[in-house]
Formats: sequence, C-alpha cells, structure tokens
Amino acid sequence: TTCLDMQNDTDNQVRPTKPATFLACEAEKSVRNLAEPSVHFSVSVVLPAGGTGERTGLQTPKQFCYFLGRPLISYTIQAFERLPWVQNIVVVVAKENMEPMTDIVQRFQHRKVRAVPGGSTRHRSIYEGLRALDREATERPKVVIIHDAVRPFVEEELVCKIATEAEKHGAAGAIRPLVSTVIAATSDGFLDHSLERAKYRASEMPQGFKYDAILQAYHRCTESDFEFGTECLHLVLQYCGINARLIEGPPALWKVTYKRDLAAAESIVKDSLSRSACIITDGSSQAAALAEDLQKAVATLEMKLDIIPDLDGDSGRCLFQEWNFIQVSINRADPTAVRPICAALEESDRALLHPLVVVWVCLSTADEPSVTAPEAFMDLASAARPRNVFLYGIQLRPWTDPARRQKALSKLAEMTSALIRERSPVLVGQMLRA
Amino acid sequence: TTCLDMQNDTDNQVRPTKPATFLACEAEKSVRNLAEPSVHFSVSVVLPAGGTGERTGLQTPKQFCYFLGRPLISYTIQAFERLPWVQNIVVVVAKENMEPMTDIVQRFQHRKVRAVPGGSTRHRSIYEGLRALDREATERPKVVIIHDAVRPFVEEELVCKIATEAEKHGAAGAIRPLVSTVIAATSDGFLDHSLERAKYRASEMPQGFKYDAILQAYHRCTESDFEFGTECLHLVLQYCGINARLIEGPPALWKVTYKRDLAAAESIVKDSLSRSACIITDGSSQAAALAEDLQKAVATLEMKLDIIPDLDGDSGRCLFQEWNFIQVSINRADPTAVRPICAALEESDRALLHPLVVVWVCLSTADEPSVTAPEAFMDLASAARPRNVFLYGIQLRPWTDPARRQKALSKLAEMTSALIRERSPVLVGQMLRA
Repeated sequence: TTCLDMQNDTDNQVRPTKPATFLACEAEKSVRNLAEPSVHFSVSVVLPAGGTGERTGLQTPKQFCYFLGRPLISYTIQAFERLPWVQNIVVVVAKENMEPMTDIVQRFQHRKVRAVPGGSTRHRSIYEGLRALDREATERPKVVIIHDAVRPFVEEELVCKIATEAEKHGAAGAIRPLVSTVIAATSDGFLDHSLERAKYRASEMPQGFKYDAILQAYHRCTESDFEFGTECLHLVLQYCGINARLIEGPPALWKVTYKRDLAAAESIVKDSLSRSACIITDGSSQAAALAEDLQKAVATLEMKLDIIPDLDGDSGRCLFQEWNFIQVSINRADPTAVRPICAALEESDRALLHPLVVVWVCLSTADEPSVTAPEAFMDLASAARPRNVFLYGIQLRPWTDPARRQKALSKLAEMTSALIRERSPVLVGQMLRA
Repeated sequence: TTCLDMQNDTDNQVRPTKPATFLACEAEKSVRNLAEPSVHFSVSVVLPAGGTGERTGLQTPKQFCYFLGRPLISYTIQAFERLPWVQNIVVVVAKENMEPMTDIVQRFQHRKVRAVPGGSTRHRSIYEGLRALDREATERPKVVIIHDAVRPFVEEELVCKIATEAEKHGAAGAIRPLVSTVIAATSDGFLDHSLERAKYRASEMPQGFKYDAILQAYHRCTESDFEFGTECLHLVLQYCGINARLIEGPPALWKVTYKRDLAAAESIVKDSLSRSACIITDGSSQAAALAEDLQKAVATLEMKLDIIPDLDGDSGRCLFQEWNFIQVSINRADPTAVRPICAALEESDRALLHPLVVVWVCLSTADEPSVTAPEAFMDLASAARPRNVFLYGIQLRPWTDPARRQKALSKLAEMTSALIRERSPVLVGQMLRA
C-alpha cells in the first residue's frame, strides 16, 4: 500500500536510482566505468562529528545511532571511502567518543579514516580536522571537502563537482531551494517582512575549499567566529575574499536531525538494497518453472530477479553483486538445501556493510507435504546470523487448481519481497507459509 | 539496534509524547481533560490539497499516498476533526481528484469535511476554500486555520494557540528555526552574501486568520500574487496591514515532500501506536506468570503491558483504549482461543483509522508439544483481516532450564514488540516460533 510513484529523494522521477548507484558502486567496483567523473589532484575529507548530544540532553549523538546494524557515521564514511580519488578522511569527534569511533573504524574495516578529538564548537572542530591534515607536508591536500557526518547519502558526481569547482574558484558549496518562506520577526514576535523565496537558497553540505585558503581563513578568524559561526563559505568570503561557487545538490543531501530522519535514512538504504535478487534453482525443471513464475510476480512489486541454476562458473559472480538470494527446493524438506549458498556468502565476506538475505522457498508437490524440521532450519539460520547473513524460509502448500496456484504465487511474491526489504533480525530462522 | 534515545521529532527529549497525545486523543475522548486548551469562537479549517503531482511528473500526489492502510490526507483531516471546537474542514483538491477525495471521506467516515475543486495555483485554491465557507452567513467562521494537507502531525495545543492569537491580532503563523544558513547567490551562481541565521525564521503551517481579513486580502490581491505568491501571512500584511503573530512550532510540523518523508511519517505513527499493549490471560495462574515475565521483558523495549484476566467488566475498557492485544494460551493449541478478542475488536469498530494487532502467544509445557493446525489459524486471521484486525501467532517451545527460559522470554518479547510495531500485512496469519 505504499506509494511507489511518489517523488523520490533524488529528484529522480521514477525510482531513487542515485542511492542505488551509491550502493551498487561497492558491488561493481570491477566494472567501474572509466568515463565516470574523476579528480586529478589530491583531495581529503573532514567530517565534523563532534556533537555529544549534550545540547539536547540525549545519550547517543545522532552520528552514532544504528540502523541496519551500522552506525550512521559509517555510512557517511563509506560514501567517501569508495571514491578512489579521496586520500584521507579525518573524522572529528568529541574526546569521549574517540574510543567508540576507533571501534567503529575497526569493526567496519574503514581504511582511509583517522579520528581526531574536536573542539567545543563546530568551527573549532573543523579547524582541528584541517590541522590534522597539516602534520606532514606530503599529506597536505590540494582541496579539502567538508561534509556533515549526518548526511550519509552523498553521490560521487556531486563530490567530484564540488572538488573540481573548489580547485578552480577556491571554494564551492552545495545548495538547495528553500522549502519554506524565510521571514524576519520583530523583537516582540510579530512578522516584520518575508523574503522573496526565489532569491535565496539554503546552504547545504558538502563544501569544498582549496586547503590553503580555508586554513588561512581559520587562522585569521576571531573568537566570536569560532564561538558563534556556522558557515565555512562565509569565512573564506570574509577572510580570503573568495566567493564560493554554488552547486545545486539533490534532496537526499538532507541532514539526519530527528528520530524520523533515521527512519527515512533506513528506508532509503532498504530500498536500494532490495531492488533485485538472485534465484537459484539447482537445475531442476520444476524449480526453474517456479522461479520464472516468481520472477513475473515480483516484477509487479518493482523487484528484478535473475535466475541461475547454481553458483558455479559465471553464475558465481552474483555472490559479489547481489544483496539477496532465493533458493528454490522442490519436494525437499531438508533445510541443508540452503547450506551451499549460506557457506558461499559467509566466505565472500560481503556482509560486512549490509546484511545479506537468503530466502528458502520450499514447494511440496506431493499430496502429503513433507514437513520441515523447524528446529534444524532455525539452527542453520542462527549459525549464519553472526556473519550478517539473514536466513528466512517460506513453505508453499501444494495447489490443486490454477486459481489457487495464482493466489499462492502472488502471496509468495509479496512475502519474499517483504522479507528482503525489511531484513528483520527478529524473523531470522522462521519458516513462514505462503 | 535502532537508537532509542535520539532526539525526537517533537523537541521532547526522551520519547515522542506529542504524537502519542495526538493518537491517544481518539482513544480517550471520554476522559478528556477539561483543563485542556479550548477555543470559544467559531473556527473552520481550509486544507489546500490541490497538487496533482504534475509538476514532478508523478501519478499519485503525496497527499493521496497511503501508509498503514490510509492516505496521508486522512491523517491530516483526522488531526483537525478530533478537535471539538473545529466546525468545518474544507479540503481543496484538483478537479480530477474530487471523486477519489469523496471516496476517502466516505471510507474513513470523516464527518466535518467538504471537498471543493481548487484553482490552478496554491493561492487560487486557498481562495476557493475560503469562498466555500462564505456560502451561508451562518457558516462564516470567526477564524479560519489554513494548513498543508501534507503536514499530518499537528497538535491541539498549537492549533489552539494559532486560533486564539489570530482572533486577537488578525493573523498568526507557526515558525521554526532555520536548519541551514540562507544565502543569496549572484546571477552567475556564486555566493553573494549569507544571512545571519539567528535573525530569520522559516514560516511553516498552520496559520490562522480572522476570516474577514484573509478574505479581504484575497479580494484585493493581484493576478501576480495569485500566480506566483506562496505566503498568506504576506498577503494580510500587504493588503490589510496586519502583522501576524509568530509562534514557534515543534519539528513534527514538517512537510511530507519526498518518498523518505512518507517512511518517516509512517514510523512516527507506528511508534505512537506501539507504546503499550493489553495482555489477556484467561485467568490461569501459569498464563498470569508468563504474562508478568513478558511484561518485564518488553519494558526494556520501551513497551508497557497491562495484564487483564478477560474482557469482562472494567477490563473491557481496554477494547476502546488499546491498539494492541496479546492473548496467552497454555497447552491449548486450538487457535479458537483468540476468537473472543478478535470478535470483540471487530464489533468495537475501532480499527477504522488504524490496524489493530492481536498476538496469540501459545506456550506448551508438555514434553511433546501439541502442534497447532496452521491452516486453521491462517483462516481465522484471514477472516479478521478485512476488518483491519491483524492476527499473528507465536509458539513457545517448552523450556527445560532457567537459562533457556530466559532466552526464550527475551526472544518472545522481541518478536511481540516487532510484530506490534511493524503491523506487517504480509505476516498476518503466520505462526512464528520463539
């Protein structure tokens, strides 16, 4: 019942292809298009993540909140780490978060990242991050990108444009149209005047700067700037006379601020992980027929299925390109049928950043359906779970007439698509009935 | 793994109590606090909902997108309809959406609503809505509230304040602090200057006006205002000399704009529907002991459980106050155990606006657990589904030692809480295993 054709977060009218690109990049590094944007000078990134949640009295600052098994900050890091032309990423955190941050870097195997302790305000933290890139002369980048830790969906194309324009003009920043009218209030709380919306823009992130220019701006700026300022573009204008180039970014740049934004971010990642799946038939013709029917049925739910007989040879590539797998078994109630795919996925070590899903679809065509031992299936699923592989089962009742068959198929499609989209840890190991 | 203590959408630091209040209102109309804000003059509401999605090339405009079985516009209507001092609600829709809108009003039994066809721009549509309140002299309200159809979470306290201040000063509008720095660009796309964030505010909705004043402003305004204007506060300032009173609103006022916002809105409603449940033991001491253990276990997941023996007498009140029910059965594999609660809920007709959840928890203490007929349970669930009652089952394996018992209990708590929160239509009728 969710609206599929609503405006997406990427200005793209039909489907959010850009976050898809974002995630597909990891899977398809090997087929990287050489015509893609690239950058031919040294670029480093500073991610101010110094908030402690103190201001709002909360225990966990947003950047350390988890969804789909990973903290927000790790998604943002990943967005830059995957860019081959990004050299270093400096994450600036509050002193008390240095240890959790180091743990995150280790656990999710981030490679280009260094955590440094920040200052008491945003500008002080950014300054600390910039200075951390100044320790050795060889490390000083030509351009530095500054980005919020809580804006995880940033695309290569935009970062590339920001870096290139910053190198050309000294500074560049992402902007968005204003969503509300901006008004000025009188001191006693009445409307003074409203600004003409079309003439103004919201200044967003990422922003890019020639490293020497932004460092100079911070060297020169006042205590009051450090204490109350928020806008880096303003500092380079005031202290270096640089008018930043403004570049319109997509809506997905928005800042994760409230609890609802975490749900929104989770839903974007879930969407991008659940557009397609790979269905393994083990070569039987009955399984292949069921796979083809399922392929048609999930197509109406906007999911694409690739049918392969097994994981041998060329088909094995799917292990490195897919997030979701469906194993079909006919008249085989023994859950060890899913062992090969689970073992291959655990070995591929691809589930580090996102949970992988395996759905076991088990059709019995005999009158007396063979009953699966649910404990054995649960045990298999529990064994795969620590490796971030989520295993679910669906049992199909034998159908007698075409109408029941069609009904069972569309229920199977709905269940498969929902299991894949939701990636619920609580349902791992359950044997459902279509 | 979701972050529970993150800043909520209501500026409330621990839990989003305000949307809770919003929904609780329906359930607790009878215990309405007389000290609550109220309004002693006539108030009507205009909801411009004229967008056709054409601008973005989409088929379904946002206000008609569904979540949890209901279109966004119905949530917004409900937010005003529940206020006893709101007289009429005029929803202004595009001509081609008059029929779907009328269907929505009927299906969800909205009572104060009239749909009228709108104009080609936002201001023209609002004007049509205002004129629809002018047909009979007895209908003209003292104050009219104008609100976006795509801002479903508006609280009585704020609407009341807006209405009261509008009556006093002629106009009042909700504002929010700016989330980004606002900048002015040069014509060739460079930064000209940035505004000092603290001096400006974002103008949001709802806004309130003396009916005569806003009508006069529209009578006087120009074709250019009708075509390009967006801000009603600006019209009453320019044409009636009224400086609107500005009132800071909560973050939950945000406008559902992108697909991600729909996920965010859904998550807010799900949160508010899943804070508590009522657990029915049928009086057995074993069931009562299990209920108490479950009560403790779900408390760590921020869910409150009320334990009642049955639906008789005082306990029957829960039927009108709760969204979620848990039926406990000991050594009774027959799913007809859930029939009474399902029948009572279907009769109460409370599921019109939100799906109700019934979880059947079925513990077998015998060595050889009695196996439930899953088909019979599925049939029961399928029968309740059209009445918007979602039935799920959880079977508990008998435990042998205290450690296994504790593990099973926390799994049961997690599953119960997840089933209640997610309200997944796809899982209806499934018998899960804890």
